Amino acid sequence: MQIGMIGLGKMGGNMAERLRRGGHEVVGYDRDPQISDVGSLKELVDRLDAPRAVWVMVPAGEPTHSTVRLLGEMLSPGDIVIDGGNSHYVDDQKHGADLAAKGVGFVDVGVSGGVWGLENGYALMVGGTSDDVARLMPIFETLKPEGEDGFVHAGEVGAGHFAKMVHNGIEYGMMQAFAEGWELLEAADIVTDVHGSFKSWRQGTVIRSWLLDLLVRALDEDPGLSDLKGYAQDSGEGRWTVQAAVDHAVPLPVITAALYARFASRQSDSPAMKMVAALRNQFGGHAVTA
Amino acid sequence: MQIGMIGLGKMGGNMAERLRRGGHEVVGYDRDPQISDVGSLKELVDRLDAPRAVWVMVPAGEPTHSTVRLLGEMLSPGDIVIDGGNSHYVDDQKHGADLAAKGVGFVDVGVSGGVWGLENGYALMVGGTSDDVARLMPIFETLKPEGEDGFVHAGEVGAGHFAKMVHNGIEYGMMQAFAEGWELLEAADIVTDVHGSFKSWRQGTVIRSWLLDLLVRALDEDPGLSDLKGYAQDSGEGRWTVQAAVDHAVPLPVITAALYARFASRQSDSPAMKMVAALRNQFGGHAVTA
Amino acid sequence: MQIGMIGLGKMGGNMAERLRRGGHEVVGYDRDPQISDVGSLKELVDRLDAPRAVWVMVPAGEPTHSTVRLLGEMLSPGDIVIDGGNSHYVDDQKHGADLAAKGVGFVDVGVSGGVWGLENGYALMVGGTSDDVARLMPIFETLKPEGEDGFVHAGEVGAGHFAKMVHNGIEYGMMQAFAEGWELLEAADIVTDVHGSFKSWRQGTVIRSWLLDLLVRALDEDPGLSDLKGYAQDSGEGRWTVQAAVDHAVPLPVITAALYARFASRQSDSPAMKMVAALRNQFGGHAVTA
Amino acid sequence: MQIGMIGLGKMGGNMAERLRRGGHEVVGYDRDPQISDVGSLKELVDRLDAPRAVWVMVPAGEPTHSTVRLLGEMLSPGDIVIDGGNSHYVDDQKHGADLAAKGVGFVDVGVSGGVWGLENGYALMVGGTSDDVARLMPIFETLKPEGEDGFVHAGEVGAGHFAKMVHNGIEYGMMQAFAEGWELLEAADIVTDVHGSFKSWRQGTVIRSWLLDLLVRALDEDPGLSDLKGYAQDSGEGRWTVQAAVDHAVPLPVITAALYARFASRQSDSPAMKMVAALRNQFGGHAVTA
Repeated sequence: MQIGMIGLGKMGGNMAERLRRGGHEVVGYDRDPQISDVGSLKELVDRLDAPRAVWVMVPAGEPTHSTVRLLGEMLSPGDIVIDGGNSHYVDDQKHGADLAAKGVGFVDVGVSGGVWGLENGYALMVGGTSDDVARLMPIFETLKPEGEDGFVHAGEVGAGHFAKMVHNGIEYGMMQAFAEGWELLEAADIVTDVHGSFKSWRQGTVIRSWLLDLLVRALDEDPGLSDLKGYAQDSGEGRWTVQAAVDHAVPLPVITAALYARFASRQSDSPAMKMVAALRNQFGGHAVTA
Repeated sequence: MQIGMIGLGKMGGNMAERLRRGGHEVVGYDRDPQISDVGSLKELVDRLDAPRAVWVMVPAGEPTHSTVRLLGEMLSPGDIVIDGGNSHYVDDQKHGADLAAKGVGFVDVGVSGGVWGLENGYALMVGGTSDDVARLMPIFETLKPEGEDGFVHAGEVGAGHFAKMVHNGIEYGMMQAFAEGWELLEAADIVTDVHGSFKSWRQGTVIRSWLLDLLVRALDEDPGLSDLKGYAQDSGEGRWTVQAAVDHAVPLPVITAALYARFASRQSDSPAMKMVAALRNQFGGHAVTA
Repeated sequence: MQIGMIGLGKMGGNMAERLRRGGHEVVGYDRDPQISDVGSLKELVDRLDAPRAVWVMVPAGEPTHSTVRLLGEMLSPGDIVIDGGNSHYVDDQKHGADLAAKGVGFVDVGVSGGVWGLENGYALMVGGTSDDVARLMPIFETLKPEGEDGFVHAGEVGAGHFAKMVHNGIEYGMMQAFAEGWELLEAADIVTDVHGSFKSWRQGTVIRSWLLDLLVRALDEDPGLSDLKGYAQDSGEGRWTVQAAVDHAVPLPVITAALYARFASRQSDSPAMKMVAALRNQFGGHAVTA
Repeated sequence: MQIGMIGLGKMGGNMAERLRRGGHEVVGYDRDPQISDVGSLKELVDRLDAPRAVWVMVPAGEPTHSTVRLLGEMLSPGDIVIDGGNSHYVDDQKHGADLAAKGVGFVDVGVSGGVWGLENGYALMVGGTSDDVARLMPIFETLKPEGEDGFVHAGEVGAGHFAKMVHNGIEYGMMQAFAEGWELLEAADIVTDVHGSFKSWRQGTVIRSWLLDLLVRALDEDPGLSDLKGYAQDSGEGRWTVQAAVDHAVPLPVITAALYARFASRQSDSPAMKMVAALRNQFGGHAVTA
């Protein structure tokens, strides 16, 4: 089918390519005229036949807000906007309501796959009405990996990004679990083949997983990870997962600990631990590292 | 090659079976005469040709201590004892030293595979001298899964169980991460197809893993897990992982949180939270649920 | 000075009483006509001389929103609304902006003191402009405890409730620390006089504190806390503290753990731990408590 | 009464001084001849009248082990050894048993008070038999603070150090709670008088405590704590508390989080977070800070 794609960066560009390989007609727009098929958003809308489907693949937050607002002004009743970025589910609900007031549909899609998606397919978590999702199924079928999994219609508008958000929360916890295990093995003298231990775990164990495969690849490339700093960004979904859990009174000790470890990794010095040092100094005359 | 197997329960019995299928001669001993090949430990030792290899597959702690002690009295210099149970690495070091004093070798093996091992092979993490491990390689080759992974000679005596212990610590963290994600999705109304979301994640996502496959199986069998209580045992390795980390001053927030969640799951009421309720009552006249 | 007090419940009623004892003229309004000085909010406003000061002491959320909205319609430029409830600082900022548009001042006050405040005074954390706070100082002087502490003008609008929110977050962490210590001492056989140990800590130790005094009182009244269930509510500030920390990328492991312990205390069964039990069952055939 | 004091450092020296001021006869021994009353441990023992009381105030671990062992060789049945250092309760039980075999009593004392103890008294948590403790009461009465608290006979041998260990665990949690609150207030712009907020909390709040007093002193001396590094040692008791909790299957999320924050504060770079960064790099091509 025909689809407009807004944002042709690493993710959007590869998704457009996978869709074209799958026989779809993709009209792409990007701020960079070198890679854009059209000169403006308006031109993209004009090039598509109604009822239109326009996939937005731009950064979450203000770029997505303004793109959805502009599309709301340009599109016609019966068209559908798809947000495939990393938006907060709360924003989806607002975008969906704003567009619904104009008769325009809205579908949110949480996308997993990263740099591997072009070849292997993208896992898709989708939120929206059954009718809107049904209409877009040819697109989803092409984007998703082969096989029976890799796609879910998770619920109404917002459910796709909510499911993706929780997926990322779980991912944080899993990564931190592996990372802690690695640190402990490196710290203890008793295990002399740490690299080999992780490698061995790829078969027959409970923890075999794609993350373990990636971990072994990382160690193959740089055995002691000596080229890296212990500094990890977080991309929003981890924070939103914790905040959603707090809203629902759901205890999330592991996922939250993983998020906090990332926060701490980015501090050159911990203010809290300065205070602990100050208190120790006050009551005990403990030596303080100044 | 020829090997003695002590303990023919679910694990030991299946391992003996896999070894026999692989062409090895296994002489098995169990307290249960119905399944034992010999009438006593002494008879088992007598039936094996020197230099002997005797695999101990009995519960960790006192049963393993006493078995190793008895073997130490019966075996001859050049023989090897293998502990394939869930022993603490500290016990391995003691067992190894005791046997070494008599010229008997000792190899510890952390075994993963559970009920799936007979068919798929057992992942093996091995500690011991290079000579002892080399002599036992035919056994290990048969027990391990096919392929290049599933086996590591992790280091000297104790390293096998240490590596397995950390594997289990990682496993605790991963399981808890999945469990927290599931609880949050169930608690939030927005995602209406939680089961389908987990199912979809088996392809194309960062968290695809054997544990996720098991999770989906569990939901297939009992969609709301309504047949289960939120009660989880811990088998020792999780505790030892935390205690080893504390010994090495390694922070392990995720693995520890997963362990504590299991502790808490087994309390019918939390003493700590009684105290929190009592304090709230004291300062605020907050309603207390008595 | 003269002040209106809206909400004459346990907190508001006692604060009105302390103000009257301090020589102030308090006109009180409550939905309950038995304790109200006036028949309506309108009558309260009419009874006060301009420029008016009206203290709102009603539950946070909708009751406070609607009271502030109504006051905005009734008050005159130069009047001041004080919110002494447990409002979220984000709400303060909205209330302050709404009233400012009408020339009405807004001051938020975080109040600590509970049932002890009438006699001992209320600790006050105040947010607002310097002019507004200065005008209200006679009220604050009477409400606060004697001595040099117990009052802070923490910053602009919202800062009072933000400071109080963090105070409560710290309180959560401290309470949980005591509660965990108590649980461990009760669980270990070695210390036979747990009650006496806590009692002894009230002098000469690092942890002596008002919370410890309350803890000892609670044990004096009910030595094993056998009359209580391990069930603890949370009042909003703990959640907001965690959510604010996540917004600011500040790791808050202790305060968050304390909050999560309260969440867990209110679950009759843990969904997450059902999933852990299910996973254990899948891979290991571990016994499951059904 | 008469007592020998071994170890005249900051703690032991001040305790000897407080005892002398209280009318006791103290014979002190230290490796440093400048401050020692006697030339050797043997001479100290000879100078005391039987039945002797000898207070050991040397570093925990090997120094305490060897001192207790030597005393065991020199003392007579009916004498008592007191360990007032920071020993592990497990060591107490061994020391007590070794000395009991020679008819020598053993009492362990957890001591709190730091640099303030000389003037204000030392909080004492005592383990031992009732007879031994009764004989030493004159000493304890002088060392403890005035008033009815500050002393507990917590249980048999080991109970004193166990109680002190848990006290310190609670202390870790409380310090971290204050430290986290401070970090959050400093990170958020809304509260402009953070120092004043903490100061104000010393009256009328739930969190008023000696630690809060110390915190305000620390901020008075160095408002932004700019002279300090966020680096905090741990002194053993925090680790033992966590390990004891794990042994007893008691969840200790807050105290453990506080301990782990100290571990992390001493790492110039986090190995675990290197692995998280490596994994992010593998699956997402996320920017890595090298």
